[in-house]
Amino acid sequence: MADLELCTLTLEELAPLLRDGQVSPVEVIQSYLVRIDTLNEALNAYITVTRDQALADARRYEEEILRGDYRGPLHGVPVALKDLYDTAGVRTTAASKIYAQRVPQEDATSVARLRAAGAVLIGKTNLHEFAYGVTADSSFFGPTRNPWDPERVAGGSSGGSGAAVAAGLCAVATGSDTGGSIRIPAALCGTVGLKPTYGRISGHGLLPLSWTLDHPGPMARSVYGAAVMLSAMAGYDPRDPASVDVPVPDYTAGLRHGVAGLRIGLDPQWALSGIHEDVRAAFQGALAVLEDLGAEIVEVSVPRVVEGMEAALTILMAEATAIHEKFLRSRPDDYQPDVRARLEKGLAIRGIDYGRARRTGELLRRDLAALFQRVDLLATPMCGIIAPKIGQREVIIDGEAVPVMAPLTRYTRVFNLTGLPAISVPCAFSPEGLPIGLQLVGRAWDEATVLWAAYAYETAAEWTQRRPSL
Amino acid sequence: MADLELCTLTLEELAPLLRDGQVSPVEVIQSYLVRIDTLNEALNAYITVTRDQALADARRYEEEILRGDYRGPLHGVPVALKDLYDTAGVRTTAASKIYAQRVPQEDATSVARLRAAGAVLIGKTNLHEFAYGVTADSSFFGPTRNPWDPERVAGGSSGGSGAAVAAGLCAVATGSDTGGSIRIPAALCGTVGLKPTYGRISGHGLLPLSWTLDHPGPMARSVYGAAVMLSAMAGYDPRDPASVDVPVPDYTAGLRHGVAGLRIGLDPQWALSGIHEDVRAAFQGALAVLEDLGAEIVEVSVPRVVEGMEAALTILMAEATAIHEKFLRSRPDDYQPDVRARLEKGLAIRGIDYGRARRTGELLRRDLAALFQRVDLLATPMCGIIAPKIGQREVIIDGEAVPVMAPLTRYTRVFNLTGLPAISVPCAFSPEGLPIGLQLVGRAWDEATVLWAAYAYETAAEWTQRRPSL
Repeated sequence: MADLELCTLTLEELAPLLRDGQVSPVEVIQSYLVRIDTLNEALNAYITVTRDQALADARRYEEEILRGDYRGPLHGVPVALKDLYDTAGVRTTAASKIYAQRVPQEDATSVARLRAAGAVLIGKTNLHEFAYGVTADSSFFGPTRNPWDPERVAGGSSGGSGAAVAAGLCAVATGSDTGGSIRIPAALCGTVGLKPTYGRISGHGLLPLSWTLDHPGPMARSVYGAAVMLSAMAGYDPRDPASVDVPVPDYTAGLRHGVAGLRIGLDPQWALSGIHEDVRAAFQGALAVLEDLGAEIVEVSVPRVVEGMEAALTILMAEATAIHEKFLRSRPDDYQPDVRARLEKGLAIRGIDYGRARRTGELLRRDLAALFQRVDLLATPMCGIIAPKIGQREVIIDGEAVPVMAPLTRYTRVFNLTGLPAISVPCAFSPEGLPIGLQLVGRAWDEATVLWAAYAYETAAEWTQRRPSL
Repeated sequence: MADLELCTLTLEELAPLLRDGQVSPVEVIQSYLVRIDTLNEALNAYITVTRDQALADARRYEEEILRGDYRGPLHGVPVALKDLYDTAGVRTTAASKIYAQRVPQEDATSVARLRAAGAVLIGKTNLHEFAYGVTADSSFFGPTRNPWDPERVAGGSSGGSGAAVAAGLCAVATGSDTGGSIRIPAALCGTVGLKPTYGRISGHGLLPLSWTLDHPGPMARSVYGAAVMLSAMAGYDPRDPASVDVPVPDYTAGLRHGVAGLRIGLDPQWALSGIHEDVRAAFQGALAVLEDLGAEIVEVSVPRVVEGMEAALTILMAEATAIHEKFLRSRPDDYQPDVRARLEKGLAIRGIDYGRARRTGELLRRDLAALFQRVDLLATPMCGIIAPKIGQREVIIDGEAVPVMAPLTRYTRVFNLTGLPAISVPCAFSPEGLPIGLQLVGRAWDEATVLWAAYAYETAAEWTQRRPSL
């Protein structure tokens, strides 16, 4: 099988080939390494490629599979990790100068789980420095580029993972989402990205950005890939105080359940305004597909949306600065300028604002729980715009210039604040040929329904067939 | 039956008399009203006595019981409410000038539940203004006095409820506990006070002090009374975002379970230092009783205690000031000076401090969950001192003058921060004849074990037999 072909397979295509011995883990990893050699310089998706370790792992896994010890659909599969996930013996930089030489002793809990599932760690991906930004063009290791147009950002903070998944530089990847950092690069790169329920995947061994908003999660070229990754990464971890002891189902088992009969909430006020018209059209097209598949679109009003976005930002800014205060004071010049400015702004957040923001979050969580008695899912556009150019600060929405962050995070933060599971699936391409994402949000702990609907949509729309030409 | 006798019965003594028609609700309420007329001026336990409504309710309940419609052990029982609980048509002042004329339209959820259980609301009790203080001698309606020595404070903030329960001015009462406000007056007045698990009793309809630390709960002359009140007050309430949908057992059912075989954690470093020697001796005596009853005392080390106390205070100060900011700016002179000073200090709390405090709380909750795998309960003294004099600012501990708040809250705040259930039961009298309390703390949602142990201890120690001579 040609390298390119192997490297663009979805996980449901690749896993059976590995299981049945039609391709070996070594062959797969070699194909990916060749592709990384060819393309990573242009995309800057990886900060570190763990070539030797990956080859050694692949050889071991090859033997295991040959002797019939098949671990499951990640066995022998090349996985990239956002460079915020601790990896024993492999530097973990957070895309920062400050941690450029930092080598952890231990794997993050979710990394250990992925290894136990047979995943081959192929490298550590680029990100917005310290995960504090949504464009991933601000990194000590240089900007991450979008595989669909290298002049554009990959989105962030998990931009390297988004770019690597989209460009076929890994089969699946991890990201982390504090204000949209999985879902935004997923949307902008045309991949699937899942932010699970808060507490579902352990954050132990990830450099924190905001203790109460951080959500580790998977990115993949298909919903199935995200489901497999979630099954492997999820589970209670007493070392993470945010981790909750809730049973973890096999998320791949019910994927073909479909979307027929599910009630999908639509808030027209929120979902159809403040965004680019191409995004709006794409979103409306996606809703029509979901309806064709038998879902019932229910008009709802999501309360406290603006208040919720602001509250999430307040909490993020206070916690990020609390975490970074020491280095912000001792090594301010070692931060990217935009990250430093954001951290400095956090010093001005007052305790009473934080307290109110937390209360808003609790009220919103309660209101959304009530709303989710009427619907099974909520649908929104993922980002309000396509990927902006690298360095671009503003974008025109409804004739007005707004900072790019506003439409990028318009639909993300509320679900960090409330901890609800949310997925981004590709739903269209803009006239410029850039991907557009659809967000589906579920009840707490109900990633399963989110995945069912996303899988049904993906199968009907077949956006996963489209690949960037590189 | 003489008035005095009726008014000092515990709930397990009174309830069967009402059930069997040996005394009528009207007779009971009249006895209590007479006693209030005699004693309330000296103690200032009540801000409002709902005489007419109480008599009307009692007459209705009398009929119900006569015709065989017995609602359970609160039927016809006089209940006092901390004047922070909304009561439809009855002013709810928070002991403040600002709300001195405030008349709510609706009962708080827990008040409605108590009414449904047949409780007769007899009045609204005094408190530290806005519940923001632990002495209850700072109130627009004047200081609450301790029934064991009216020159001393009743403790706070729920001092009026503590004094009313101890002095026989009500059968049972409600309090609320944000940093010890149920447990401290319970200890200082020699009553039982229970702070349940965070989210167990709805806070809807209580004036908030700190959204994330407020715990409504019962006060009573016996553990049985607290158990009955908890059973009535607890339960999921979608209107309170903090409320959690966890089944509510009948807490009276297992009370005679006993304490034999239970492992009770003791942290000598924390529990035996920083307190008055009489308290230490009383606590050690209580531990000996628990051991005699078959409990196993297990030496433990509670982590992050000092950090946890400070974190709870940071969160309290930020949230209280967030809640009061409007009036603090528009009507600063309408606050009691100490409350105003506390609220003004809250303006200086930084968001990053709040964020760190929240994180400390999460870490402590995790650590305590681990510790509670080794023990069933934790025991500490309740307050480090007996009731100070009204207006007293400092107390001598180990030869050093410290603010009275320090020993009063030494064992309280950590369990507001972590939300764990904790009870105060009388365990001794000081040489001055003032009561001393024992604290027992349990696992989240496990009020039952806390009540078992407290009941067994109470039965063995029989402190409930002792009453202030008034």
